[in-house]
Amino acid sequence: MKILVIGGQGTIGKRVCRGLKEGNELIIAGRHSGDVKVDISSPESIRTMFQHTGFVDAVICTAGTGYYGPFDTMTQDHLLPGIQGKLLGQINLVLIGKDFLSPEGSFTLTSGIAAVHPAKNGTAVAMINGAVNSFVLAAAQELRQDKRINVVSPGLVEDSKERYGEFFPGYNLVPMNKLVNAYVLSVKGAVNGEILKVYS
Amino acid sequence: MKILVIGGQGTIGKRVCRGLKEGNELIIAGRHSGDVKVDISSPESIRTMFQHTGFVDAVICTAGTGYYGPFDTMTQDHLLPGIQGKLLGQINLVLIGKDFLSPEGSFTLTSGIAAVHPAKNGTAVAMINGAVNSFVLAAAQELRQDKRINVVSPGLVEDSKERYGEFFPGYNLVPMNKLVNAYVLSVKGAVNGEILKVYS
Repeated sequence: MKILVIGGQGTIGKRVCRGLKEGNELIIAGRHSGDVKVDISSPESIRTMFQHTGFVDAVICTAGTGYYGPFDTMTQDHLLPGIQGKLLGQINLVLIGKDFLSPEGSFTLTSGIAAVHPAKNGTAVAMINGAVNSFVLAAAQELRQDKRINVVSPGLVEDSKERYGEFFPGYNLVPMNKLVNAYVLSVKGAVNGEILKVYS
Repeated sequence: MKILVIGGQGTIGKRVCRGLKEGNELIIAGRHSGDVKVDISSPESIRTMFQHTGFVDAVICTAGTGYYGPFDTMTQDHLLPGIQGKLLGQINLVLIGKDFLSPEGSFTLTSGIAAVHPAKNGTAVAMINGAVNSFVLAAAQELRQDKRINVVSPGLVEDSKERYGEFFPGYNLVPMNKLVNAYVLSVKGAVNGEILKVYS
């Protein structure tokens, strides 16, 4: 299987790549490094990436984040980068990438626990994650040629404890192998239109 | 109670206003008509509206829509107006309006059934509705002075049958009085952080 992993050198992406490297051809895409460069906030950059990779059997996106900060002083300007990146970026990966995905291929996007269990100061991220989840439910009905789409919704994962732990007090740590399994299930299994929740 | 209804002359808003007019002071806001003009896609317009109304006890938003159309040809450009309107518009009503909401006051936003039961050609709307739902879950934790926030998620309502019926084949028609009750529950009840689903 030829698998494109956007964000493949990030915290989650690295583990996903390790879990899928046996017997597959991995193409790692990243903003600053990897086999191919991409800025998912730019539709043009996404198109250029797919023109470079050609047809793939699976697209995984573990890239993108959103604003964490106090609600009282939050404005639209805090929300826009996450909307253009993690939200529209992932949507554009599907809208553009579906023409570069092999029949029976799959998309696996990433949302997060905040969609249903938002953390303090995480309103922006909650909103983005909820949007990605509902987009996937809808897009699964629309894809043709037996193409599939799922979204992995991680809780606070072990490897993110240092970076995000302070934002998620009281959230259980998710073992990385359980998280990786959700991506493997989406790519290698038959599930479609699923929100794969990995919360503990 | 002084209640601001944005979209109060729309299909749903008209009914909500009728259901709440007894014993309350209603201020109707709309893009082209009403007691006060507002374009919720503009934060400046929202701020001007609240400066005009002063403090209110409840804010209801029934305004905003999104793109319906074929998935195959959908691009980011189809999504942006709904993101700036129904999504960021409603979020900005809260971020800006919380300083004009009386203690113990409430926000009631509107999403829709597509967040969990998306219709064909309704991917854009599904995404927006999912975002609004998750925003409300998160914002309910952040509001102070006992201010509350809920979102009403309507199915295909009776009065929208002509406008939206063709987009929702097989969806049950929701009686308007049941829909209005959800808004009344949010404004007059004690519920907070609820997605009030009115699907049949």
